[in-house]
Amino acid sequence: MVKLIALYRKPTDTASFDKHYDEVHIPLVRRIPGLQKLEITNITGAPIGETGYYKMAEMYYESLDALNAANASPEGRAAAKDLMSFAANTVSLFFGEVTP
Amino acid sequence: MVKLIALYRKPTDTASFDKHYDEVHIPLVRRIPGLQKLEITNITGAPIGETGYYKMAEMYYESLDALNAANASPEGRAAAKDLMSFAANTVSLFFGEVTP
Repeated sequence: MVKLIALYRKPTDTASFDKHYDEVHIPLVRRIPGLQKLEITNITGAPIGETGYYKMAEMYYESLDALNAANASPEGRAAAKDLMSFAANTVSLFFGEVTP
Repeated sequence: MVKLIALYRKPTDTASFDKHYDEVHIPLVRRIPGLQKLEITNITGAPIGETGYYKMAEMYYESLDALNAANASPEGRAAAKDLMSFAANTVSLFFGEVTP
């Protein structure tokens, strides 16, 4: 299993971010072919000090090939374009293999 | 459901990091009371450019109270002390609520 992780730092306007995220971005993500599971975490704190992170989305695919195909699909490109419209400065994207 | 996330940047000596992580740290984490699930991801790349991240561990608990109790337990403190011994400069810790 492979997952793509989108880790968001705290946006300036959280209400506007949340509205776009929930009403526009997530519906686009859910349409991506091959997506097996989506897990969203609302980050609320840190064990020591504070955290600058706000949200994390994890998108699970069967393999790296499936992830690459998803990113290259029209639905994947629509979600990526939307992401850049509201979170280009706050998101980090990376992927990896989930160990069994 | 709540999870504690440990996100590691790439260490200087990956072989030494991996050995300590697998042989010492993970066994300590697995002993923490209340831990319901542990998911480890080996980070291998980014959709655009490169990523500085190396590994992510997600520790799931039933609630924030359970997470706090776990961190305060002798087993939680032993894992935290060990973490600081090999990853103080590479790890970020934060927690949040997993949305249903």
